[in-house]
Amino acid sequence: MSELRHDPVSRRWVIVAAERSLRPNEFQIARPVPPNDEPPCPFCPGQEAGTPKELYAVRDGDKANAPDWRVRVIPNKRPVLAIEGTLDRRGLGLYDRMRGIGAHEIVIETPQHKLRPFELPHLQFAAALTAARTRLVDLLKDSRFKYALLHKNYGQTAGATIFHPTQQIVATPVTPFSVATKLQTSRAHFHLKERCLFCDMIAQEIEDGSRVVQIDEHFVTFAPYAARFPFELQVYPRQHAHQFTGMGDRDIERLASHMLGVFSRLNTVLGDPPLNWMVVNAPNTETQFRRGGYWSTLEYDFHWHIEILPRLTPLAGFEWGTGFYINPTAPEDAAAFLRDAAT
Amino acid sequence: MSELRHDPVSRRWVIVAAERSLRPNEFQIARPVPPNDEPPCPFCPGQEAGTPKELYAVRDGDKANAPDWRVRVIPNKRPVLAIEGTLDRRGLGLYDRMRGIGAHEIVIETPQHKLRPFELPHLQFAAALTAARTRLVDLLKDSRFKYALLHKNYGQTAGATIFHPTQQIVATPVTPFSVATKLQTSRAHFHLKERCLFCDMIAQEIEDGSRVVQIDEHFVTFAPYAARFPFELQVYPRQHAHQFTGMGDRDIERLASHMLGVFSRLNTVLGDPPLNWMVVNAPNTETQFRRGGYWSTLEYDFHWHIEILPRLTPLAGFEWGTGFYINPTAPEDAAAFLRDAAT
Repeated sequence: MSELRHDPVSRRWVIVAAERSLRPNEFQIARPVPPNDEPPCPFCPGQEAGTPKELYAVRDGDKANAPDWRVRVIPNKRPVLAIEGTLDRRGLGLYDRMRGIGAHEIVIETPQHKLRPFELPHLQFAAALTAARTRLVDLLKDSRFKYALLHKNYGQTAGATIFHPTQQIVATPVTPFSVATKLQTSRAHFHLKERCLFCDMIAQEIEDGSRVVQIDEHFVTFAPYAARFPFELQVYPRQHAHQFTGMGDRDIERLASHMLGVFSRLNTVLGDPPLNWMVVNAPNTETQFRRGGYWSTLEYDFHWHIEILPRLTPLAGFEWGTGFYINPTAPEDAAAFLRDAAT
Repeated sequence: MSELRHDPVSRRWVIVAAERSLRPNEFQIARPVPPNDEPPCPFCPGQEAGTPKELYAVRDGDKANAPDWRVRVIPNKRPVLAIEGTLDRRGLGLYDRMRGIGAHEIVIETPQHKLRPFELPHLQFAAALTAARTRLVDLLKDSRFKYALLHKNYGQTAGATIFHPTQQIVATPVTPFSVATKLQTSRAHFHLKERCLFCDMIAQEIEDGSRVVQIDEHFVTFAPYAARFPFELQVYPRQHAHQFTGMGDRDIERLASHMLGVFSRLNTVLGDPPLNWMVVNAPNTETQFRRGGYWSTLEYDFHWHIEILPRLTPLAGFEWGTGFYINPTAPEDAAAFLRDAAT
């Protein structure tokens, strides 16, 4: 019989369909094929003149927009949100609208067009994450932005249009609904227990062990108890911290090393699946403090983490109609496969 | 510049990216190809012995499980939730679990294997919807079930595994999160205004007209103001009603005719796109009344409707990370294309 599981953070129920539990080789995986867009693509070295001017780069020389970069951050040429202007929020009968103000940046992780997530050299991936952190810190100084999402789309099924390895940053003028819900829950827990909900969850997962995939002194990755998707994972810093942007360079090197291990396990078990990963961060504290201190306990009651979502199964009407999910692979099974895999 | 729009029901923000507005011919649509599973499939007439025994059928003769049916409802052979047993809800440290109790039924819409949604004859589709309503009424007598979702998956991208035209019913022992949110909002509106939020929205949409796709005396279909997806549509009964299950046979015939018109327009404009549709219903009143009358005003403050979601674009990390959506086609543009299309 299947089981209904409740996620204590998002407050969603998930159906873990144990009877039809799918093994790694039973998914029809749309593998991210390197691509019709043979290099050079717009993100390859030498193509700098065709992109918007860079916002940040790691390079050996000192000439901006020269081709000697190792990591490069540029504005998206066709941003979903525009950086200039006022929000101009207004009603329209029952509805609300604002101008699409925000930021949309591309972090080019490496000059090499064809590297898959698990193939990035350790210090290269660390440099890309450090560049992303630097951009996030800068963006979040802007009080118009309530949230900034760092994420990666890998493979067409995961929404990528170009193969070249990139991360994306989108800064939004509203706190996203799903983040607000998570924050609400974790605050309620903190008020009740005077402990961080996520710290409690990490402790329980480590003690239980059945869903842990990889653990070291600083980070732990486990399959969440109420995972929505097969092989869904969460990466947590073991020490409490509410903002990814508070991470030092050395912390980020450790994170990069940990994540590469996890990507490697996913590749071993699932054979290079398409995936999304995203940093779940506390909302922009700067902004919130200015709004009357409502989020003043934020640093205690939120705990940043990373979600990794391999994209193995399509969503169907049931998911869209109810907002709850059917997971055909028990998180304990997924964790066992990944734990036993070579990195 | 793009626009941020707020949906008054789900309380989500959507980015309507007007500058990169995609026209119907610009989507890479994974068309539902009729299929490797050439008839007969398990749902075709003559294959009744291979399926679970039918729960309901419309047929000329009177022998159950004979091949002369016109519509047939069977339990799913591999249900995600099982009908027998108690919920046995319990904690597990921070987590909550229940046994996977519920119902999972298949409504076979027609004996004809290869009919696409817009090709179903009017009275055939009406008979299928009527059969579904009859099953919903029956299932909702069971006080273990808080919600029952009627939905359709059409095409692999939309989660269908067999081409034969079916609808699905899933009854769940909890009120789904997304339904609870919608209900919360519409109740707040009712308490404030003593009017139904949905009735207000319908009135505003009809008066404005720019997002209306199809309208007749009884039903209206429009592209919602904060549509998450290109060509997303909602179908509403114009007269207030909180439960789809309260619909009479004649109402359902009218609904079938209206929906076929909309499917036809989608086919004309997008060329047979994969899609999901689902009935958004009030939670199970029977159950709720027994729980102390909390939902006692349900019949005034909820308004059932149908969501139609063509599946044209993949979800990316931004959507997963924030729960808000980027819609590359303005709902007004989508509505204009569909309104002008032949049915």
